[in-house]
Amino acid sequence: MVFKMNPDLKKERENASFDPEKITNFLYGGQESVKRKRELESLALNDPDYQHEDLNFMSREQQYETQLKKGILMVTKMKELKITNAQDQLFYTSAVLVSDVHPMSVHTRMFLPTLYGQATEQQKEKWLKLAENYAIIGTYAQTEIGHGTFVRGLETTATYDPKTQEFILNTPTLSASKWWPGGLGKTSNYVVLMAQLYIYGKSYGIHPFMLQIRSLEDHKPLPGVTVGDIGPKFGYGVMDNGFLSLNNVRVPRENMLMKYSRVEPDGTYVRPPSTKLAYGTMVQVRAGIVMFSGMNLAKAVTIATRYSCVRRQSEMKPGHPEPQVLDYVTQQYKLFPYLAAAYAFWLTGQTMMSVYMTSSSQISKGDISVLPELHALSAGLKALSSSMANVGMEECRLACGGHGYSHASGLPRLYTNATPASTAEGEHVVLLLQTARYLMKSYNQSLQGEKLAGSVAYLSGVQPVPAAGRTRNMLDLGALCDAFRHRATRIVGEAAAQLKSEMQGGKDQADAWNASSVDLTKAATAHSQYFVVKTFAERLTDSRLDSSISAVLTRLCQLHALHGLVTNSGDFLEDGYLTGADIHQARRHINALMAKLRPDAVALVDAFDFPDGILNSILGRYDGNVYQHLLEWAKASPLNKTDVHQSYHKYLKPFLEANRAKL
Amino acid sequence: MVFKMNPDLKKERENASFDPEKITNFLYGGQESVKRKRELESLALNDPDYQHEDLNFMSREQQYETQLKKGILMVTKMKELKITNAQDQLFYTSAVLVSDVHPMSVHTRMFLPTLYGQATEQQKEKWLKLAENYAIIGTYAQTEIGHGTFVRGLETTATYDPKTQEFILNTPTLSASKWWPGGLGKTSNYVVLMAQLYIYGKSYGIHPFMLQIRSLEDHKPLPGVTVGDIGPKFGYGVMDNGFLSLNNVRVPRENMLMKYSRVEPDGTYVRPPSTKLAYGTMVQVRAGIVMFSGMNLAKAVTIATRYSCVRRQSEMKPGHPEPQVLDYVTQQYKLFPYLAAAYAFWLTGQTMMSVYMTSSSQISKGDISVLPELHALSAGLKALSSSMANVGMEECRLACGGHGYSHASGLPRLYTNATPASTAEGEHVVLLLQTARYLMKSYNQSLQGEKLAGSVAYLSGVQPVPAAGRTRNMLDLGALCDAFRHRATRIVGEAAAQLKSEMQGGKDQADAWNASSVDLTKAATAHSQYFVVKTFAERLTDSRLDSSISAVLTRLCQLHALHGLVTNSGDFLEDGYLTGADIHQARRHINALMAKLRPDAVALVDAFDFPDGILNSILGRYDGNVYQHLLEWAKASPLNKTDVHQSYHKYLKPFLEANRAKL
Repeated sequence: MVFKMNPDLKKERENASFDPEKITNFLYGGQESVKRKRELESLALNDPDYQHEDLNFMSREQQYETQLKKGILMVTKMKELKITNAQDQLFYTSAVLVSDVHPMSVHTRMFLPTLYGQATEQQKEKWLKLAENYAIIGTYAQTEIGHGTFVRGLETTATYDPKTQEFILNTPTLSASKWWPGGLGKTSNYVVLMAQLYIYGKSYGIHPFMLQIRSLEDHKPLPGVTVGDIGPKFGYGVMDNGFLSLNNVRVPRENMLMKYSRVEPDGTYVRPPSTKLAYGTMVQVRAGIVMFSGMNLAKAVTIATRYSCVRRQSEMKPGHPEPQVLDYVTQQYKLFPYLAAAYAFWLTGQTMMSVYMTSSSQISKGDISVLPELHALSAGLKALSSSMANVGMEECRLACGGHGYSHASGLPRLYTNATPASTAEGEHVVLLLQTARYLMKSYNQSLQGEKLAGSVAYLSGVQPVPAAGRTRNMLDLGALCDAFRHRATRIVGEAAAQLKSEMQGGKDQADAWNASSVDLTKAATAHSQYFVVKTFAERLTDSRLDSSISAVLTRLCQLHALHGLVTNSGDFLEDGYLTGADIHQARRHINALMAKLRPDAVALVDAFDFPDGILNSILGRYDGNVYQHLLEWAKASPLNKTDVHQSYHKYLKPFLEANRAKL
Repeated sequence: MVFKMNPDLKKERENASFDPEKITNFLYGGQESVKRKRELESLALNDPDYQHEDLNFMSREQQYETQLKKGILMVTKMKELKITNAQDQLFYTSAVLVSDVHPMSVHTRMFLPTLYGQATEQQKEKWLKLAENYAIIGTYAQTEIGHGTFVRGLETTATYDPKTQEFILNTPTLSASKWWPGGLGKTSNYVVLMAQLYIYGKSYGIHPFMLQIRSLEDHKPLPGVTVGDIGPKFGYGVMDNGFLSLNNVRVPRENMLMKYSRVEPDGTYVRPPSTKLAYGTMVQVRAGIVMFSGMNLAKAVTIATRYSCVRRQSEMKPGHPEPQVLDYVTQQYKLFPYLAAAYAFWLTGQTMMSVYMTSSSQISKGDISVLPELHALSAGLKALSSSMANVGMEECRLACGGHGYSHASGLPRLYTNATPASTAEGEHVVLLLQTARYLMKSYNQSLQGEKLAGSVAYLSGVQPVPAAGRTRNMLDLGALCDAFRHRATRIVGEAAAQLKSEMQGGKDQADAWNASSVDLTKAATAHSQYFVVKTFAERLTDSRLDSSISAVLTRLCQLHALHGLVTNSGDFLEDGYLTGADIHQARRHINALMAKLRPDAVALVDAFDFPDGILNSILGRYDGNVYQHLLEWAKASPLNKTDVHQSYHKYLKPFLEANRAKL
């Protein structure tokens, strides 16, 4: 059946104040990039080889198998099609995999990069060709069942035996078992193993070792190796996250990845030149997560916004037809702040990435002076964006009512696959405290008269609380940035005072830090929020933006700032920087902005340019034909393969018959 | 293998300041009730007939089949064991089903009660015995694919044909298809169908009809009936939520449930005496959800708290061993406010239920004067408690780091099965607006000099903002209740002013309501939060509480109030009722309370008395032997049935070999 576009969505698109294509070009960095994106997406989405039954209809084993097949096809085709540029690969693979990964994803994302980054030339010669050509499949085994974020706490050991010039690898306790590496359970035959290096009984910290875990002949685990899948999870059903325990497994000395540290044949240990270089990769990964959080939120908001225009409900006025759900101001209040946040994080992630790229030539020359600041900034932004995306995706699901709960909405799968971003690559609070540590250091430097640079420069200046009786235009982006700046400065100062007072009260540094840690995370959050508001506002000064676009994006930026202000109003009121009247005015502006954004809502989500195949949601379909497709989808699901399910004959029939007989 | 209790958990239990058994007795209404609860739980948990593989290891079809079998067994055994009392049934079924339901749950929870409540004596004669004895299985079909919360919008029709004295049942459009009823897809052979009644072309609104949908011989759908499963969902994998469309299906006139409204053979319609009686059931269901939200939050907090004592991470002080995660103040700040909220909602749900029970004899005598207030109160509390439980369960999952993401934690399943409470039985915002409507009415009555009673009585009095310079003890429960009361009064007043100003600005009633709806939901939330804080404080005046218990529960109550105050500090600062210094003091009190609660945390979750079989979480095990059992559980999971998965032979081997051959 062919359906026309849902008339409500059609009308929404006709009534928008701007052409969404212009925003799409802005978001993806220009017309050429958008064209290339769409070519690559079409190539993937129209390829019959990638078609299969909905993953949501499958058992976990079937999901794993389907995605393994798809991953192999994808790797093969990307080579044939010569898709080699990183950006192109991202567009193509996103369209093949949608919100999922495949069992060899970690091979590409971490095993290969580790070899590039940490192997010597000789080692590259030996393994890189095999790995690049998928003649071996590897993963990165760091996390243990008892040890995560705190890398120094890992228990796996690599003990050097100078007699045989080998390392003896062991997971000496239960809590040392490797746990979580993607692709480890069933797929990989190699790992980079992170282990505590011991030489002559002395510990030298964590180092990477190449280790073959399965036979290249029959894929069976090698002697001394116990490996398997860690069992079903909230999401990531396609991935065989695995466990690994090792019992006296020996590898030659040459299997330690020795680009930085070295162990000589006689057991002499040679230190690495600097340990800070790894920060660069972390900054990049975290900037990626900021962007990725913006995109996931954008997907959820696209689904919920389109559906809220198709769905009609209740009776606003007696006798009138049921209005579109998006006409309820409460529904706008659920969705528009996340629409604004999606734009905010998308743009902030891009800015963060380009700041990193600008600094990276400096870094690669060995000048790592900018790294601490970038590291602190990216940690806070990663924590803020992933946690807001986390909450926002669920709010969007709930805003779709009952249908949001169905896998047909695409929202449960999107959420369960994206939520690890909030605990992985640095847990939320741990990261905020990393940012806070840098803020405290900077703040104290500034107190001692040092001039601060970069994202913390503002901590030098103390803004006075304005005299009572002044009026403020709460829509002015400058005034809003000032308010966020004042709040961040004040809260950073308060956290520092709190820390000091705990130490003056007799606590040592560590206990004082712990006792102040709630205030410190608050400071890091305020700092990160200020950066996002400021960056969003700055991006709107781009001279390439035409006025129709700039008007609507300014409204989103205002909404983002005002919503942050109103939901944290106490922070602005506490020292009298804002007044009750300001907050009242801010709430009225939010209502007015939402009313102005309402007719542009569909165009604003269309501008994210997610094709249906990538959105993978019946509620979020571009054509809005929701109910027809919900029904078709349901009919295709496994329980409907027969009219009468086999369980009827096994359980229900005997039960019903026995009960009838008793009457 | 038998493991001893984890030493950290053992120590926690030894160091608690009170005996958890005393709180258990308080929570479950006395020693006798706890004894009975434990007997019934043991009966279920130790019954070998209920044992099966982890549902998380199964495909959806297997889950459905397993749970159907279990549901049948449970119904049969409860009859044999003569477990007839409602409270006993709840204890027993909770232990059998854990956080899941079974495919006949709606038969028990809604189909039977509808027959009791809406069938005439004759109709009961005909169907009740069949239904009570499970000779027929029914469900309750109200929600349609295009219509949910707004019941009057349902499209399914029942058109009376006086010639044959039958109703002709139809789902005339796609959006009229029934959608969601539990057990409809594959299990039920009967439904109570909610449909628009038409007689001689005139509509009489929604009425219930008994309808057989499947043959009692072979379970095949009857002519004119299309029925099936709606496909996989976020949770509820065991349940065959279904769809149903009807094409000119005829049922005799006697199939309309006619206890209240009637259709005479000649088509004369006889009105029901009152339409408000259904409110009573709603109040009861919603009070149940408040309690249920408290319990689900309690389960999540139990898991996260125990695990946070077993898990050790990072290095607080150089050279010291890794501390228990719960020793981090940030971890306490993640969990303790939800621990307090779990107690708050548990106790508030109980109070709400007993208020309803006290009024119900009055109601059953036809005096429904208390219903509007109870209805408004229960709507707001249901919205508040379910949404806080929703957020809190996920926070607890994230607080468990990576392992929280595994189904072994029990948290994903708990969450996905409990989250519908936030949209089902009245969507969050819709309910808050119901409460707000009552608040506006009461507030206006009070302005006109009427005296208000019950939960809104406080709206009559206006508390003045105290003069500057006073000091306040922010730990005093009376002062805290006053603050929440002042905030609720102020925000209700502001919402009323907003509504009035929108109407004075020219909007009609409906548009003004919509324009003020964000403020109105805020008013309903503030009102509900005040009620919870007040109820929690009042429950602590129970003279049966001994001092050790009352001390620790008072701390929880203080924490609950202070955390609510600090996270909404703007509301208290906006009109100067509290000062920045008060908020600062509140934050310090929170830190001090958390430090005091820390040694009692495990005892406080033990007091909820969830046996391991009901908690169903490896992270939350009473004995704390987490890692051993994680590994055992993983090894038992389906992907580990063979060392080398079949997909290796199908996909991976040919791929690897081809790649090797190319090198």
